[in-house]
Amino acid sequence: MIYFRSDYSQGAHPKVMEALQKTNMEHTDGYGLDPHCIHAAEMIRELIGREDAAVHMMVGGTPCNVTLIAAALRPYESVITIRSGHAYMHETGAVEATGHRVAVMEGVDGKLTPELIDLAWEEYQDEHTPLPRMAYISQPTEIGTIYSKKELQALSEKCKERDLFLYIDGARLGSALTSEKNDLSMRELAQLCDAFYIGGTKNGALFGEALVILNEAIDDHFRFMIKRQCGMLAKGRLIGVQFEALLDGGEDSLYFEIASHANRLAKKLREGLSALGVTFYSGSETNQVFPILPGAVVKELEKAFFFHEWAPEKEGMIPIRLVTGWGTEEAEVDAFLEETAECQNRSTSSFL
Amino acid sequence: MIYFRSDYSQGAHPKVMEALQKTNMEHTDGYGLDPHCIHAAEMIRELIGREDAAVHMMVGGTPCNVTLIAAALRPYESVITIRSGHAYMHETGAVEATGHRVAVMEGVDGKLTPELIDLAWEEYQDEHTPLPRMAYISQPTEIGTIYSKKELQALSEKCKERDLFLYIDGARLGSALTSEKNDLSMRELAQLCDAFYIGGTKNGALFGEALVILNEAIDDHFRFMIKRQCGMLAKGRLIGVQFEALLDGGEDSLYFEIASHANRLAKKLREGLSALGVTFYSGSETNQVFPILPGAVVKELEKAFFFHEWAPEKEGMIPIRLVTGWGTEEAEVDAFLEETAECQNRSTSSFL
Amino acid sequence: MIYFRSDYSQGAHPKVMEALQKTNMEHTDGYGLDPHCIHAAEMIRELIGREDAAVHMMVGGTPCNVTLIAAALRPYESVITIRSGHAYMHETGAVEATGHRVAVMEGVDGKLTPELIDLAWEEYQDEHTPLPRMAYISQPTEIGTIYSKKELQALSEKCKERDLFLYIDGARLGSALTSEKNDLSMRELAQLCDAFYIGGTKNGALFGEALVILNEAIDDHFRFMIKRQCGMLAKGRLIGVQFEALLDGGEDSLYFEIASHANRLAKKLREGLSALGVTFYSGSETNQVFPILPGAVVKELEKAFFFHEWAPEKEGMIPIRLVTGWGTEEAEVDAFLEETAECQNRSTSSFL
Amino acid sequence: MIYFRSDYSQGAHPKVMEALQKTNMEHTDGYGLDPHCIHAAEMIRELIGREDAAVHMMVGGTPCNVTLIAAALRPYESVITIRSGHAYMHETGAVEATGHRVAVMEGVDGKLTPELIDLAWEEYQDEHTPLPRMAYISQPTEIGTIYSKKELQALSEKCKERDLFLYIDGARLGSALTSEKNDLSMRELAQLCDAFYIGGTKNGALFGEALVILNEAIDDHFRFMIKRQCGMLAKGRLIGVQFEALLDGGEDSLYFEIASHANRLAKKLREGLSALGVTFYSGSETNQVFPILPGAVVKELEKAFFFHEWAPEKEGMIPIRLVTGWGTEEAEVDAFLEETAECQNRSTSSFL
Repeated sequence: MIYFRSDYSQGAHPKVMEALQKTNMEHTDGYGLDPHCIHAAEMIRELIGREDAAVHMMVGGTPCNVTLIAAALRPYESVITIRSGHAYMHETGAVEATGHRVAVMEGVDGKLTPELIDLAWEEYQDEHTPLPRMAYISQPTEIGTIYSKKELQALSEKCKERDLFLYIDGARLGSALTSEKNDLSMRELAQLCDAFYIGGTKNGALFGEALVILNEAIDDHFRFMIKRQCGMLAKGRLIGVQFEALLDGGEDSLYFEIASHANRLAKKLREGLSALGVTFYSGSETNQVFPILPGAVVKELEKAFFFHEWAPEKEGMIPIRLVTGWGTEEAEVDAFLEETAECQNRSTSSFL
Repeated sequence: MIYFRSDYSQGAHPKVMEALQKTNMEHTDGYGLDPHCIHAAEMIRELIGREDAAVHMMVGGTPCNVTLIAAALRPYESVITIRSGHAYMHETGAVEATGHRVAVMEGVDGKLTPELIDLAWEEYQDEHTPLPRMAYISQPTEIGTIYSKKELQALSEKCKERDLFLYIDGARLGSALTSEKNDLSMRELAQLCDAFYIGGTKNGALFGEALVILNEAIDDHFRFMIKRQCGMLAKGRLIGVQFEALLDGGEDSLYFEIASHANRLAKKLREGLSALGVTFYSGSETNQVFPILPGAVVKELEKAFFFHEWAPEKEGMIPIRLVTGWGTEEAEVDAFLEETAECQNRSTSSFL
Repeated sequence: MIYFRSDYSQGAHPKVMEALQKTNMEHTDGYGLDPHCIHAAEMIRELIGREDAAVHMMVGGTPCNVTLIAAALRPYESVITIRSGHAYMHETGAVEATGHRVAVMEGVDGKLTPELIDLAWEEYQDEHTPLPRMAYISQPTEIGTIYSKKELQALSEKCKERDLFLYIDGARLGSALTSEKNDLSMRELAQLCDAFYIGGTKNGALFGEALVILNEAIDDHFRFMIKRQCGMLAKGRLIGVQFEALLDGGEDSLYFEIASHANRLAKKLREGLSALGVTFYSGSETNQVFPILPGAVVKELEKAFFFHEWAPEKEGMIPIRLVTGWGTEEAEVDAFLEETAECQNRSTSSFL
Repeated sequence: MIYFRSDYSQGAHPKVMEALQKTNMEHTDGYGLDPHCIHAAEMIRELIGREDAAVHMMVGGTPCNVTLIAAALRPYESVITIRSGHAYMHETGAVEATGHRVAVMEGVDGKLTPELIDLAWEEYQDEHTPLPRMAYISQPTEIGTIYSKKELQALSEKCKERDLFLYIDGARLGSALTSEKNDLSMRELAQLCDAFYIGGTKNGALFGEALVILNEAIDDHFRFMIKRQCGMLAKGRLIGVQFEALLDGGEDSLYFEIASHANRLAKKLREGLSALGVTFYSGSETNQVFPILPGAVVKELEKAFFFHEWAPEKEGMIPIRLVTGWGTEEAEVDAFLEETAECQNRSTSSFL
């Protein structure tokens, strides 16, 4: 079985494992107060050009989102997102569990726009409605698209106008930053938002994300919030050690090498499928590919490949999701393309 | 200033005040465990033909909605409603404050439909998404329309199919039941849902709603929930006394007399405005009227009348909301129609 | 049956009912934004000598406590109280329902002390423990004792030292202020705390408490918090009207007249029982009396009187609670004393 | 610097690291639905002799406690624990964050007793107080003592009598089970409670705990609860792999070997210090030692050793905590004993 299921189906990149192995016998203090976490945070501050940034090593993406949102909002405040946003669609109401509304809008190309923020605002009137206080977006989005510099600037300005915090879920941030279409540097991104996280889990780590808080109003007593939200790891250094390994070398580090590798293979998948006449559910520009295939072809492919069916079959066609990761091999991509081509040859059904 | 602002702008119907006055010196036990609350509950069980119903005297509508939802749902479960639903639009995230998602759909004519429930269901996949467990509707809706018997039956069946509780917010239930268009009796309604409340605040009481729970799974330890959600009134009997006064006489009681009065005057408003060529924001069939008027006319009317502007001005027109209540007088309706007609005469702008 | 069950077993003082009756037909805006609420707030600001105070008309005591605490604390913060504190002992975890710990200490004579605050502080260490941020007390306490001026000053200073808000639950504040032992004026009290409430429910109102916030940090968006916590009444003016009636005349108003009446009859009960050799569970100085009586006597008294057994029988003796209110009559007190004396005569069991 | 700071100051036992390394390149499904988690759960069911047990691989101890408690309790229910209980003392109110009271009692020798449960019960009266529904204990306790079989049986019976779930925090369960004083097998423990967890983090894993639910009422939709409480790990298999490595061999497995090693060195510390005349803060029988030393000696020892001061200095003496782990070496223990002896020789202050 070949996996295009997700970018977290394998363990860690071998160099990350090596770092964990190498530091394994060290004794350090717990809960993220160790030299590795401190050093990794320093590396990140340098990488993003923000010496004032607070950096917290977190176990996963949902803990990042929930802790950040719960720390930033007052009880009656809400966070605006789109229907496909991870914090709305894939976290089992974990944000609402902290007492806050996730005000959901219908996204455009997987993205939140200034217009949608204005629309969300129309729901707000007075003390009888929650007060919107944050916009939550992902870069790249859940369907693999990315915000251009101009789009993010416009969103950032709208947030300032509406007195909203802007928070960016960077579960696959590496993939966005190394996308061919990307025109936004990490330093620029760190100037345009109030907080974001650099995803490790989906970019070569065993687990772990580096949450970067750029607005000190949000960082107040943040470690209390991490503990209260069950997100504090006893051996917190494990996350620091992994980010040291991933980010060593800054812009030329393993972190970006892994993301580029995954993007390159995703592109190959996309172009190969396109050449077969396949259309796509989303114009993904990162390490996720969303081809729409005939139901029969999908069932055939599932015999040898493991992937998500992204949405229910409609008029005989199923959008699927293929994800590449640090460990995806070129031969696996080739195998998928070949098998799809064969299905096409065997089949009478069109790919369109 | 003449008020069409709401059906809660005056005190209580004189007969309700009289009952409060008459029982004022009595000593009773507190917290709703008194003879008046017990008697009023018994009257309600008889009125709806459900001897097995649990009836709780509640202070207001938001406490009803929030306590009922929080009692019925497990932590990871959500409640489906529409964007204009009171529990979504006018309760400042009070439901989310108890940790539950309010899954919001775009309503049709102010109503939730079986199709919208199916659509909401599509968001649910597995343990990564909240599990829908309740449908919340209002009868009448926030924009004054009512569910027909057939519509409610279809919704009820869909809820059973999806294993959803069906809960009906009856803040203005009297107005729905006495609407000319209504074909649904209270007894039928009480067979089609798991819980509903009979609104007092907007139908002649000082305050108070009678929450009726028809599914014993929801009623488990419900008084603990009322107290925990801050909804237990020390002199709980005040609500019981008021419902005794309102419901004495059953289907011929003051409760329905008040609602009929308000409906009749609303209808007069609607027909009078319609005769002037006015169109409406919603096809309300109850005690709310939503005419769409030129902005200049609205400003003119606001000099003598107090009402809500329901939505922002668009292309020069503003939808407003006029509400009639137990104390609205025919002369007030006449005055509004006359003044509107005069505005029309003075104005060059069309009412369409 | 004669009631010493509580000070909320009857309706409202006749003058309060009269005010409600008199204003019943007025039309006003809802949700506490009416002239009566505004006027009552102004009266309170004058009475306490704090023009800067924010005053919110609340439905009941639990809503006051919960909304105030939830508004004042950040998610990881806790409130210190004693085991018999109402917010701990009689609110079904309503404070915890908003996500905050109620850190409970063993009170001294029903009171929190500076030493207990220091002790509570010992539990706090770092981000692994909640951060205490408020002290909650009642004046008078749940067992009827009162803080002297000196005691409250000491507590207030300790709170400042520990950076704690000091909040005073004044459900029976009138009774404390008119106690013979009291040396603390309302104006002084309003200088020593960050928030308190003036209880109406237990002092002649149908319901309603006036929550006074003296620290603007707590008042931020407070009306949003009231609505979110389900505490906003549609006909909010009802509370304003009642406080206008209660407080008209300031320090000579009905509010203090009612409290003095209840205190005087409680004192008569206390002295009468004491003369019979009865001892007391607490040195109450307000409108609650806690005699400890032989179990057999208690059962005998329960035939004609309705009151709380305060704690389980121990070595044959039961502490009971007798409460006097605005409607308690001198003859009722006399009847209780006579019946107790007769029980004593008939009985061989000692009262000690 | 020699660490007796905690049993989580190093990475994982080398054999655990080896297992992670060996499985690193495998592709599996995420979120704990992989063959390793399934296999590890099977191993645990066999080890405890309960084929009906549900086993969930969790990231840490606080997530175990909070998710289990939040899943088991209805909103108005509370959990009883003692002041030194981890869920009360070291989790920043994470349980209260889910809306539940942690009802705290003063423990005896670090333990909850049937008598304390009865005492906690006295607080419960009716719908005005939270309803106790669970007892939370740790085995071993936070101060290193262990419940005997007889003690746990008595607690279990009391819980059944009071209709309480019994939940055991097993962060250091290995240490309890391999203590010389222990007379309770894992199989017996699994018969006496409704849920417990087998701690990995403090017994040789990088992180991870195996939560065992023996009462199916608690296990209902538990994976939804894990996700909602932010506890679901993308590469969930990491925990499964580690428990496979730790538990391979059942009662002769690495898990118990590690615990025995730590216990043996703790015992050596205890006996060595005792021989020097040192007394102890608690009669710990597991891998924690709590000697009480003169303040000056503590300061001297802190130059070469890293450990917790357990409580503030009192009358010149400070209780400290020494913890041994999988990586503690005999030479480190010897060094501590030698240095303490030297301090004693140099000092005039008594060790008593």
